[in-house]
Amino acid sequence: MKELTIRRPDDFHLHLRQGENMKKYAAASAASFSRALIMPNILPPVCDPAGLKAYRDEIQKSCEGFTPLMTFKILPHMKAEDIKPLKEAGALAGKLYPAGVTTNAEDGISSLDQIRDVLFAMEEEGLVLSIHGEDPNASILEREIRFLPQLEKLVSSYGKLKIVFEHISRRESLLFLNELPERVAGTITAHHLLYTLDDLMGAALKPHLFCKPVVKTEEDRQALAEAVLNGHSRLFFGSDSAPHLKENKENAVVSAGVFTSPILMPLLADFFEREGCLSNLEAFVSERGASFYGLPLNRETLTLRKESWMVPDLIGGAVPLLAGTELFWRVLP
Amino acid sequence: MKELTIRRPDDFHLHLRQGENMKKYAAASAASFSRALIMPNILPPVCDPAGLKAYRDEIQKSCEGFTPLMTFKILPHMKAEDIKPLKEAGALAGKLYPAGVTTNAEDGISSLDQIRDVLFAMEEEGLVLSIHGEDPNASILEREIRFLPQLEKLVSSYGKLKIVFEHISRRESLLFLNELPERVAGTITAHHLLYTLDDLMGAALKPHLFCKPVVKTEEDRQALAEAVLNGHSRLFFGSDSAPHLKENKENAVVSAGVFTSPILMPLLADFFEREGCLSNLEAFVSERGASFYGLPLNRETLTLRKESWMVPDLIGGAVPLLAGTELFWRVLP
Repeated sequence: MKELTIRRPDDFHLHLRQGENMKKYAAASAASFSRALIMPNILPPVCDPAGLKAYRDEIQKSCEGFTPLMTFKILPHMKAEDIKPLKEAGALAGKLYPAGVTTNAEDGISSLDQIRDVLFAMEEEGLVLSIHGEDPNASILEREIRFLPQLEKLVSSYGKLKIVFEHISRRESLLFLNELPERVAGTITAHHLLYTLDDLMGAALKPHLFCKPVVKTEEDRQALAEAVLNGHSRLFFGSDSAPHLKENKENAVVSAGVFTSPILMPLLADFFEREGCLSNLEAFVSERGASFYGLPLNRETLTLRKESWMVPDLIGGAVPLLAGTELFWRVLP
Repeated sequence: MKELTIRRPDDFHLHLRQGENMKKYAAASAASFSRALIMPNILPPVCDPAGLKAYRDEIQKSCEGFTPLMTFKILPHMKAEDIKPLKEAGALAGKLYPAGVTTNAEDGISSLDQIRDVLFAMEEEGLVLSIHGEDPNASILEREIRFLPQLEKLVSSYGKLKIVFEHISRRESLLFLNELPERVAGTITAHHLLYTLDDLMGAALKPHLFCKPVVKTEEDRQALAEAVLNGHSRLFFGSDSAPHLKENKENAVVSAGVFTSPILMPLLADFFEREGCLSNLEAFVSERGASFYGLPLNRETLTLRKESWMVPDLIGGAVPLLAGTELFWRVLP
């Protein structure tokens, strides 16, 4: 039976939530990933050293052998002197959410001028700026493109700041990234590589595929796929897996977020294999992200076997993407 | 207190479903509308004289004083000789659904050549061709525009056929309609006049606003609004109100259809008033449609009072659009 063994992957964009269900979400990630960059938009947000340490401890206790890489949320009232203690507490990155851009981002940033000193301090400390790159004032499909001038301004104003443009969803964004210096990279999710607006709402509407940024057109998807499959040197994997309780997804008001962590590696192996690029999977999920963040590569391995299994209906109260359907690669324990 | 009295309106595009809940859906329409053109995509579809009469009887029994105007569904296997009996049974229009284009359209038409003789017979009998004008093979936002060449072909191939381009959702479609002869008209829904993709998914996702064709951009909405508010001579009202049971809208797989009939006239009165065009409402909802279909104008009136009320949470198991919110015009009994 066909097997694939690669250096153990990392997930450079993950939502784990809190409390009892978090254990199950963390376990779903830990089954495939050695480390994950944990998003800070919990309630209240991760925004100071004590909160960061407490959240890291909660994650570590809930899931042995899984390493949370910590971020903090950049808030409008933050000061330059808040940054060094966050780094000392273990933060790798600060996350910039434009105000209102996604779930729990109401307290985000409405003008980059608000956080000028904070960004200089992050640059000074060598922290990565991780960005949800959408302009919430633009219409839904144009938000990412409308954010590009702000990205350009950030790159030029902070000449040494390392920046990650998270969950890139548009062809234009990729072209834009290509023109930016090496210290700017992008993450790509599995769902933006595989799905489009037609999957979201071409037949019935599929709320479990609703996320921010929303999946885009086939032209966009193909541009992302081509770049990733060909080993684009500044794109690495960040799942943006974001579990919501089933009742918040199958509702009159549906929260943004796709819960992919239980299926990521089977999905990606299948996709890279179908496209004849299986040999490029490892660098995408296990190498380029760690290198960008200056982390050692994992020494452990992950093995997938070509063997079908059914995606469970519910994990920790959340419905995984493709629940109840058959996948063709299985992660071995 | 401000009141508005107009000739009683008609709804030239309505889904009523069947069975016990239909009584409530019909009552919700009958509270404002004298007549409605009833869509035939029930299961099994309305496609023969017996079925048409039975469905009309069911509707009439369920709601006194409300006049269903009947349509039949054009099916691939239909023959020219099927048409005259349908007209004699009371059909005003035949509905063309491209195969798979919306709810219960799997048995629709995959090629216009399939129904050549049927369309000639409809032309001969003076029946109206009512069209869900989307190409289901195109991507979701482009389906209507991609259907325009087929519309043009229909208009040129059947030189006397009256055609209604239903629920127009794109600016380009309006411009296209303007170039077509007088025997081609369009219907406009309340939701396409009022909402965009940003309402559907700009913040949270709102499954109760999910319909086919999906609501489009603000540019599209403005084009429709401008045409309707200024009294475009070939646009009239068809709500496409389409109730689905709550459990089919708040689900992992959401059916297409917006249930607007309980709120239509308050919503439209508010919209036309805000835009300073209240005097153009009557022709849109009560005159141009009847004239196009060759029906006498209603003699009764409808009065709305400027008085707030709350939209109910559930009617016949379905959630009306804007459930639980306050509207500012109320229909008087």
